[in-house]
Formats: sequence, C-alpha cells, structure tokens
Amino acid sequence: MPVSRDRWSKEFGEWFRSVLLNAEIMDYRYPIKGCGVWLPYGFKLRKNVLKILRELLDSTGHEEVQFPLLIPETSLAKESRHVRSFEDECFWVTHGGSTPLKVRYALRPTSETAINPMLKLWIRSHRDLPVAIYQIVNVFRYETKATRPLIRMREVTTFKEAHTAHATAEEAEKQVEKAVSVYKRFFDSIGVPYLISKRPEWDKFAGAEYSIAFDMICPDGRVLQIGTVHNLGQNFSKAFDVTYETVDGGREYVYQTCYGISERAIASIVIAHGDDNGLVLPYDVAPIQVVVIPIPYKGKEEPINEAVRDVVRKLEAAGIRVELDDREDLTPGSKFYYWELRGVPIRVEVGPRDVERGEVTVVRRDTLERSGCKLDAVVEKVVETAKQMTADLSKRAWEWMRKHIHYVDSLEKAEKLIKEREGVAQLFWCGSEDCGREIEERVDARVLGVPMDESLEREGSCVVCGRRTRYLVRVAAAY
Amino acid sequence: MPVSRDRWSKEFGEWFRSVLLNAEIMDYRYPIKGCGVWLPYGFKLRKNVLKILRELLDSTGHEEVQFPLLIPETSLAKESRHVRSFEDECFWVTHGGSTPLKVRYALRPTSETAINPMLKLWIRSHRDLPVAIYQIVNVFRYETKATRPLIRMREVTTFKEAHTAHATAEEAEKQVEKAVSVYKRFFDSIGVPYLISKRPEWDKFAGAEYSIAFDMICPDGRVLQIGTVHNLGQNFSKAFDVTYETVDGGREYVYQTCYGISERAIASIVIAHGDDNGLVLPYDVAPIQVVVIPIPYKGKEEPINEAVRDVVRKLEAAGIRVELDDREDLTPGSKFYYWELRGVPIRVEVGPRDVERGEVTVVRRDTLERSGCKLDAVVEKVVETAKQMTADLSKRAWEWMRKHIHYVDSLEKAEKLIKEREGVAQLFWCGSEDCGREIEERVDARVLGVPMDESLEREGSCVVCGRRTRYLVRVAAAY
Repeated sequence: MPVSRDRWSKEFGEWFRSVLLNAEIMDYRYPIKGCGVWLPYGFKLRKNVLKILRELLDSTGHEEVQFPLLIPETSLAKESRHVRSFEDECFWVTHGGSTPLKVRYALRPTSETAINPMLKLWIRSHRDLPVAIYQIVNVFRYETKATRPLIRMREVTTFKEAHTAHATAEEAEKQVEKAVSVYKRFFDSIGVPYLISKRPEWDKFAGAEYSIAFDMICPDGRVLQIGTVHNLGQNFSKAFDVTYETVDGGREYVYQTCYGISERAIASIVIAHGDDNGLVLPYDVAPIQVVVIPIPYKGKEEPINEAVRDVVRKLEAAGIRVELDDREDLTPGSKFYYWELRGVPIRVEVGPRDVERGEVTVVRRDTLERSGCKLDAVVEKVVETAKQMTADLSKRAWEWMRKHIHYVDSLEKAEKLIKEREGVAQLFWCGSEDCGREIEERVDARVLGVPMDESLEREGSCVVCGRRTRYLVRVAAAY
Repeated sequence: MPVSRDRWSKEFGEWFRSVLLNAEIMDYRYPIKGCGVWLPYGFKLRKNVLKILRELLDSTGHEEVQFPLLIPETSLAKESRHVRSFEDECFWVTHGGSTPLKVRYALRPTSETAINPMLKLWIRSHRDLPVAIYQIVNVFRYETKATRPLIRMREVTTFKEAHTAHATAEEAEKQVEKAVSVYKRFFDSIGVPYLISKRPEWDKFAGAEYSIAFDMICPDGRVLQIGTVHNLGQNFSKAFDVTYETVDGGREYVYQTCYGISERAIASIVIAHGDDNGLVLPYDVAPIQVVVIPIPYKGKEEPINEAVRDVVRKLEAAGIRVELDDREDLTPGSKFYYWELRGVPIRVEVGPRDVERGEVTVVRRDTLERSGCKLDAVVEKVVETAKQMTADLSKRAWEWMRKHIHYVDSLEKAEKLIKEREGVAQLFWCGSEDCGREIEERVDARVLGVPMDESLEREGSCVVCGRRTRYLVRVAAAY
C-alpha cells in the first residue's frame, strides 16, 4: 500500500497544489490571484463529475437554466441580511468602456438576487409551483484570506446552484430533505465521505432560515465544506415580492430553498483518494480509465505490439476510456510514474512473459496490486477490478474519516485535538449561541453544528456551562 | 406550406424576439439591458447544438479548457491594436468589496489576452506545438447599439472560442482552412446556409493578419455574422513573448489562429427555419423530437390511450426524445399550436379512425404534411420523416438564401437593392480601401468582403473607379 496519508498531512496544502498542476488538472499561475485555468485533463474530469451531478438533478425534477452573471446593486440590496453579508465580498463592475454605470453591477457571488426578479414574472398561480431549477456557472468572491486552487478561489469556476419555490413551508422542508438525499447520492458516487451538520444560527447562509452543510475532513485535520442546503423560508420572496394565487384565490409569498455544490467536489475527490504518488481517480469519473503499456523486449517487439493492439481494441469495443502509451522515448517505469500521477485507475502491462502465456498484467492504482489474466478475459478483469477498486476507495475513505472524529468531554481536550490536527471534535453543547461562540473562541476553530447524520441516544453536559443537554456539536478547524 | 417568410420579413425583429420568449428559449426581461435567461427548453436546445460543436472540435484535434473571466488591464493592453479596439467595449471591474483594485480587470471580450500569458508558460519547444484548445464561455461587450437577444447581447452567454499556436506560418494557414471546414460541417449539420467572405482590411479582427467570416441572410435582408476565423500571425506572440525552441536550437515566435462561434448559432437555427407558426427545429438538435397527441373520442378512450402508450414506448425504446401530451384541459388544436410554436419536428396523432385501422398519423412541422402509417412501423416512419425533413430544411434555406444574392453592376443598383431589403449585393471592386470605403458610404451598408465560397471566372469593372478587376465583393446591411 503506497498510501501514507499521515506522512503528507503536514504538507497537505503543498501536496494538493502540486498534484493539481502535475496531474494537469488546474494551472493556478494565471496573473490574477484566486483564478485558475482548467487544463484539458482536468476539464474532462470536471465534465465527468458534472455529468453525474446533472443526471442526479435531472432525474429528480430539476431543470437546467442559465442566468446572467451581472446583478444590479439595486437587486442585490433587496434582502438586507443578504446584501450585508455579500457586498464586501463582491467584485463590482463600475464602467462600460469609459462610461460610469448609473447602477453598479456585482459579479454574482450566488444567484438568489438574479433569480427572484424573474420568478416574480414567472410565478402567477399555485399551478406554476413548484419551481426547481439549477445552473452550473462561475461565481465570484473577493476573498481576502489566502486563496487556494479549487478550494478558495476568487473566481469559483464551477458552482452548481439549485433554486426552488413552493406553495407551503412543508413542501420547502421536504425539498431540503430531497436535496440532502441527492447530495448524499452524489458524494457516494464519487466515494467521498461526508459529515452532515446543521450549521449554528450565526453561521447560516445570509437570508436563510437555516443551513445544512456537508463537510469532509482533509489529511491536515481541517474540514472542507463541500455542499450546502438552505431553507430560505419567505425571506427572499418577501424582499422581491414573489407571490402566487392560492387555490382559494388569495395571495401568498412562495417558500424557497437553495443548495449548492462547487468545484470543491473535484477537490474532494483529489483529497479523499490521493496519495504520495499523486492523484487516484474513481473509475467512473476518470478521463482515462485504463492505460495500456507495452513492456518492450528485444526480439519480441512484434508479438507484444500485436497483443497490445488487441487489448486496446477489446477495451475500446467495451466502451472503456482507454489510452495506449506507446511513446518510444520513455521507459515503462517512467510511464508508470506518469500515469500514476494522473490517477488512471487501471494499468494494463503487456510484457514478453505475458505474451508467452497469452496473458496481460493488470495493476490497480490505489493499492498497486498486480494480477494476471488471460488476454481474452481482459474486459471482464478490468470491469471487476474497477468495481472492487470503487468500493475499496469509498470504504477506505470512510474509515479514515471516522477515525478522525473524536468525542471529547472538555474544551481543553477539544483544543488539543484540533491543535494537533486530529480532525473533528464532537462535544456536548447546551445549544445557546453564547456557549457556541465561547467554544469557537476557546478552541480557535469553527462550530460546524449539530450532526444530522447520526442519531444520538446519549445525554451529556455542555462543555461550557455544564447544563445537561442532548445536543452534540461538531467543532473543527475549517478551510 | 405555412411558410411565408416574406410576410414577416418586415417585422422580423419583433417576430424573432417573440418566438424566443413564447417558445421558451430565452427570457430577455432581465433587469440589465442585453442580458437574458436561458429557459429550460432553450437550454436543452443550446446543449444539443453545443454537443455537435464539441464533437466536431474534439474529433479534429482540439482540447477543451477553461480560462478565467477576468483579464488584467495590463494584459489586455499588450497588443496595441487589440486594446484600442476593445477597451471602450469592455466592462471594467474596479472594486473588490469597497477596496479599489490596483489594476482594473476587464470582463473578457474575447480571450487572446487571457490565454497568451499561459501559452508563454506552456510552450517551450517545437515538441510542444501545435497547441489547439477551445473553451465555451460567456464574454462581455458594452454594446452601445440596440441590443437583441442571442444576436447582440452585452453578456454573450455562449462563446465557443478556439485558439491555436503553430511553429510555422504555413501550419497556421492550414489551420485556418481546417477551421473553415469544421465550421462548414457545423452549419451544414444544423441546415443553416452561409456565405464565406474574407473581410476587408478595415474590418478584420483587431490583432489579426486577416479574418474570414461566415454570414447568413435574415428575412429582413440584413446579414448576420455567425462565425469568424482569424489568422493572427505573430502579432500576439510578439506582444506576449510566446516563443519556442526550433529544431536547430534557435528561438522563434509562434504563429497563431483563433476562431469563434457564439450563441448566434442558436439564433441562426431560429432564423433559417422558423415560420409564421413559430420555431422549426432540425430533428437532431430538437429537445423534443416527437410529440404524441391523443385525439380523444367518446367511448374510444381506452383503445386510443393504449395505442398512445404503445407509440411512446416504441419511440422511447428507439432512443427518440419523445413527449406525450396527455393534458386533459387542452383541446388537440391548442396542443398542436403549443408544440408548433416550440418547433417540435414531428407530431404523432392517434385518433379513433387511426386506432380502427391500427395506424397513427404523422405530421411534419415544416410543411404540416400529414401521412398515415401502421402503428407497428411508427419508428421507421419517424426516422424516415426526420431524415427527409432535415434534408428539406437545409435545401429550402439554401435556396432562399441564394435567391437573395444579386450581382449588380452599379452602386445605384446596390443601394436600391439594400434599401429594399433584397439581401446581398455582389459587385466588382478594384480591391482598394478607398473604393471599398466609398462603397460603404454610398450604399449605407457593409462590405462583407471577397467571396471565398465560389470561384469567379469573370472579370468586370470596379463600381467606383471603373478599373478592370477580377475581385468581387459582397455588400449588405448588417446586424
């Protein structure tokens, strides 16, 4: 097993950035801080991941649309908490050519205030509800913290944001559950483990009634928020006057939800599965699923090449994304290195002994385990290996995450745990904002919120005030 | 034939805008001028069109990437003609939150100046060449002219821009030819007719050696530029210092080309094939290829519904994008109208007589021709009808365009022709800029340039100076 996640946990940031560049995912050397270029290989990975997300959304009643990038300041300002939260994070367009604009435009930080003026035009009656739309677009935040590729960008190149409108609060509530379930299926399909927490009041989305978030734990013990689901209640519909005619002829404001997943989804794959040798990609989203490498041997060139061509033909015919690496100026070893760095899930080697036996050698990227199979059975072997590897990647990632969640019964222990980058602390909390804020200050970490993905039978004492409580809360250093 | 293009030619602008909204392609009522919202149906159409474009580019050696939206003013300014042309058309980001930026950022009007700083990092030696990349992104122009949905937007939501770099001028030249051939195949696949012209010197892309453009003729006699191909020579590589090491160890600037197609491609489909009843979509790109409509008849409900379900099952099994319209509150007539407006290529009706005969009725959107077929043969009938309709749409559009190109031998005739919205005038021109400019002024139209899609055997006299010449030039009112 080449996986030594704990060794690189200390240099996680550096590892992450170099993998993105060396595996040709994203080039982050663009002349504007926080902006990066998707390279061809990375773009294909992104495309495969978005395909899964689109299929999940399309099959659960969402329709894809696309809204403008620019939002007039007058629209952004309509929901007061929203604008207070975002105005200092927006990039502002002030001029068209040399002409100052009468109203400044924000580059969308998120699209509630772009969408609601249109919903007001579209929604007339209860028959127009529910509305469930999504778009995959770039959004912008003027980040003043350190930026990181895919994790904290000023141009978030890939933001899938869904927006829904409903006739009743109950339907909006149900939509929140549906969204959480869709996101679970999404992260499950890429083998990324997650914690689901209800964010504390003081950390909810600006303009939401409440926010639910998906977090993952990184090798350096910090958590990364990888998805959010918000119940907006009637906050935006009241601000934008989005109403519908009820069955009995009255008028009512719609109830809304929104939920988002960004390019951090790609980051989550890199983080959850990567190792010392670079990227490890789940088979379903890998741009290249199998690389075929001939092991040349003097005098055996022709039979080896023939077997290689046969393997490639068979895999292609089975619809597998296969690449033949027949570069003549590279040794097999340097090819192994090259494709391991890029996370190709399966390598098929064809050497002189393989050919003699009518076999090929199949190597898994995650464990580097080698096993032979008859050339004629190569498709079955690849499919079976892929299936096993997909399951193992997910299992290993979940196990790793679970090992990094610790119940603690005091702030001191939580502080130590987080300082030593051990992961997430779960502790009892009375539920009050005062005690929550005190936890954050004392531990120097963020309260992720109350777990929604496990039932709690126990009762304990709030680590701050000592009151008996059944509330558990998660605390971690966060990106 | 419901097609009466000449009747609506006068109100073309209004027709176009209402079709886009009523067929639910784009909602143009967004609170910023020149920005629109892709509606679910329109988004699917866009996706199908982009799929064709992507497949064409991917199969001809291009790789998809994605560059940042923001371009620092310092980068934009490096190619002097380029910046002069674009700086007054750019939207400028001047603030991050309340902080003024040290260097202003332009919202990309096109991406040469975003891409070249990265090419400088990527290209080291002749082995790194050629580079051929493309991206499909939004671009921005601060248009001061009247804006129009899909045709003249301030946010062009969909710009496919390809950028290539080569070792020699010859290779760049060949790439231009390749790009023209790819674009021909693209427009052919959506049945849109085009004129290919080499733009005059004074109308070439800012920073190009020369520009080739695809134009179509609209029902109002004006032309719409729907694609461009530019040979950039070494203009940008010199400005950005993009060099490579040659085979013999020297250094040389790369030669570049770029070529673009925007959402005008979607507009071109609407314009080329639409009629009084609304949209007419080519089968291959239609979000819904077949709509099935039961014609209810008292006492025959069950056999009709059973036949309808059978038809839908058969079409779905054949991979056809089919929609069943079984809404009970609408008459068949209003359903016909509804789906004709949305351009669904084929309608299958199932009424009481059809059921008695074991048949269905198939109706083509373009001609509204009706014909019966056995229910068991519905898939074959749909496929055959689609094929015929695809061919006919293209043929009719090309014939219509050819009728609107006129050879004229004087400026007066050209002026009259264009004033009366008859289309494109082709006339002899000596090739000098003076005479070209004079043509533009006198005729109040644009010189599209020298035809590249027909060989000219003849010789004539320049309509301005009278010199003998073999140059023909196209002149038209232009969007």
